[in-house]
Amino acid sequence: MQKTKARTLTGFMELLPEKQILFNKMKNIIEHTFIVNGLSPMDTPVLEYSQVLLAKAGGETEKQIYRFAKGDNDLCMRFDLTVPFAKYVALYYHDLNFPFRRYQIGKVFRGERAQKGRLREFYQCDMDIISNSELELIADAECIDVLSQIFENLNQEIVIRVNNRKIINGLLEEFNLVSSMNEILNILDKKDKIGYDKTLQLLSAHTQRAKYLLDIFEIKSLEDLELNNFKNKLIYKGIEELKQILNILNKKQTKAEIVFDLSIIRGLDYYTGIVFEANLKNINEKVSVGAGGRYDNLTGHFCDEKFSGVGVSIGLSRLFDLLDKNNLLNFFEQTSAIVALLPFENFIDQAFCIENILKENNIPVENVYYKNKSFKNKLNYINKKGINFLIVIGEDEIKSNIFQIKNMITGETQKLHLDEIIKYVKEYMKEENKILSYNNQ
Amino acid sequence: MQKTKARTLTGFMELLPEKQILFNKMKNIIEHTFIVNGLSPMDTPVLEYSQVLLAKAGGETEKQIYRFAKGDNDLCMRFDLTVPFAKYVALYYHDLNFPFRRYQIGKVFRGERAQKGRLREFYQCDMDIISNSELELIADAECIDVLSQIFENLNQEIVIRVNNRKIINGLLEEFNLVSSMNEILNILDKKDKIGYDKTLQLLSAHTQRAKYLLDIFEIKSLEDLELNNFKNKLIYKGIEELKQILNILNKKQTKAEIVFDLSIIRGLDYYTGIVFEANLKNINEKVSVGAGGRYDNLTGHFCDEKFSGVGVSIGLSRLFDLLDKNNLLNFFEQTSAIVALLPFENFIDQAFCIENILKENNIPVENVYYKNKSFKNKLNYINKKGINFLIVIGEDEIKSNIFQIKNMITGETQKLHLDEIIKYVKEYMKEENKILSYNNQ
Repeated sequence: MQKTKARTLTGFMELLPEKQILFNKMKNIIEHTFIVNGLSPMDTPVLEYSQVLLAKAGGETEKQIYRFAKGDNDLCMRFDLTVPFAKYVALYYHDLNFPFRRYQIGKVFRGERAQKGRLREFYQCDMDIISNSELELIADAECIDVLSQIFENLNQEIVIRVNNRKIINGLLEEFNLVSSMNEILNILDKKDKIGYDKTLQLLSAHTQRAKYLLDIFEIKSLEDLELNNFKNKLIYKGIEELKQILNILNKKQTKAEIVFDLSIIRGLDYYTGIVFEANLKNINEKVSVGAGGRYDNLTGHFCDEKFSGVGVSIGLSRLFDLLDKNNLLNFFEQTSAIVALLPFENFIDQAFCIENILKENNIPVENVYYKNKSFKNKLNYINKKGINFLIVIGEDEIKSNIFQIKNMITGETQKLHLDEIIKYVKEYMKEENKILSYNNQ
Repeated sequence: MQKTKARTLTGFMELLPEKQILFNKMKNIIEHTFIVNGLSPMDTPVLEYSQVLLAKAGGETEKQIYRFAKGDNDLCMRFDLTVPFAKYVALYYHDLNFPFRRYQIGKVFRGERAQKGRLREFYQCDMDIISNSELELIADAECIDVLSQIFENLNQEIVIRVNNRKIINGLLEEFNLVSSMNEILNILDKKDKIGYDKTLQLLSAHTQRAKYLLDIFEIKSLEDLELNNFKNKLIYKGIEELKQILNILNKKQTKAEIVFDLSIIRGLDYYTGIVFEANLKNINEKVSVGAGGRYDNLTGHFCDEKFSGVGVSIGLSRLFDLLDKNNLLNFFEQTSAIVALLPFENFIDQAFCIENILKENNIPVENVYYKNKSFKNKLNYINKKGINFLIVIGEDEIKSNIFQIKNMITGETQKLHLDEIIKYVKEYMKEENKILSYNNQ
């Protein structure tokens, strides 16, 4: 038979089982955090009408999109979860309860040139709280708090840098720079790379007060910012909002470090209030591992009804890559089963019973019965898969109903009754945070 | 602003939150069952090279596929999880441990004409056990047992009808009908629809022993089948395999009813041993809700190494539709939060603390603080969302540290300390099987 070369597209993540277990564990932790926060799940199609997905998109987005015709339909693969969310709300708002609090975890697709580390297919994890009436600032705090909870549950320390688009917009008004907003924000965005002098030079082309403007963007606290005598009211409204949100976060006892950072902009339009971005403390690269903000009009392109909201998005695939590369996933287990049963050939049937009892107790188990492998081969297989505990099942064990359970990592063994084994392993799983799945008991 | 009509493609499932919660619950139960059975997770890309996905496919499959060009690449969206699995094994077998036991849950895409009930995007849930050496029949029994466990965990009774392709192939040899296999199997497949006489007439065009052949296909037990004096050895090999698998299932105490059914064929090639199909007992339609079988050469189109295996696949989206239509999902909860907190305006900060404590105990909670809604509005919102318990937080509660918890369904109220509330709600969740997510504690 002629063979086709097996290969996977560049930019599409495909993991070996050990890594996939870690990835799924991260995904489950994020979903669990969304769920305990009382958010509703959403799942929209991967494919949509191009007209719908591109209702807003500009030239750059369109180039990145997987777009094609099928029959009479012009179709696109979704490139984010925000546009499908807007469509969903415009389509079903009569049936939704507001505030509508949702999360969605799913793959999105960007057909851009594959660069190093750039993925063409990746998971995004989004949450949003939207309302058909005024949405309180507690909602903004909730999004930041959930972001903090997620990284706490992932055992990663983050700093969340917050800003307010009202402050940025107010400053541009204050300096009469609204018409050259894009250029100004681009220059300020590159400040860290090009340095103070070059930034000043570029800004001077737009305003005579370039130095003053640049000095303002060096300010690190809301209090210092307030000390300036701005004429523009929007700046103070933005400061006041941020203060209130920080106050709520304090009362919520949000664990992540939160700092004010005027350089956080998050795109040129869309956001209208708070904007924020999270970075990992334990790596040097300043990569955004989660970001979001407040917006005014989610469904503007689809309907007249207005829905304002606040949301946060985590790029899971990129986050996984980053944590993996920096060895920050080491504390997670990489095994598909917690217990391996190794029955002697005449005791396979008895092993079935023990297997059933462990499963009923939600203990992931693999029965290593394989007759055509030697005992040594089977031990090797169990070791390679990283299974935590081994129970050998033979005549003595079945007669006495006492089994030896061996910790495959420490080598430690214990002789226990089956019910004691269950307690022991469940305690171990609880302590080591090892239940990989939804626990339906 | 000019508006774009918000719409979703026909044949693409998109659920309102209450239904989405049920759907995700089903998905989680299936994943949980795979995990406790010690299976490794897999996640392959939605997009693949067309050459890879179509390595085997014939004309009919190709017509159904979403295929398009992007740059120099000829791409397809996956139409099942089996071809990507074969590619994965051919690509990574050096790094895998055999037997390789895997599951994958993901969306697949078929661009066929949308008929009533036909989905173009749907979830498939697959498990496979494959080996690079001979794979024992216990593996076949494991697949059937996992299928049984899944439906037991979903609270649905099923019957699993089993057959063996060796029996079918042996019978075709016995009757010298191998060359007209496709026609014969097509005729037999339609037997229930066209009736005995018409079937006999059609078969007679192929063999003089049409009546005898048809009578054999009426046989309902392996024992009766064995009584025939066939010359062909393959038939008896097939019978012997099935007997062994049924014997193992008996020892595994598999809960589902298993029956022998010669009419189960499952496609024309691919399978080489046991084939099986599950039907729901509580509905009249004989719809397959899960199916699978044994195959000889998974990766034949990609490499010379041979991997034989056995697998099972569940079409989750179709199953959800079926159960929902037949009101068989009623016992599942449809709420995103278990507890609603309703603080009086001056006690929102205290509600934050209680919210945190509930979340730490994995209790999904929503803090209904919204200031611009009346008390009545908020109660309405909680009722509409179907949240199970309500805790009102005011001065008395904070002072006494005793809270009234109201069961929103029964109306029953109790006054309890917070730690008692946690115990009470956790007990309720446990009993009612209501933890929607992976429990990471």
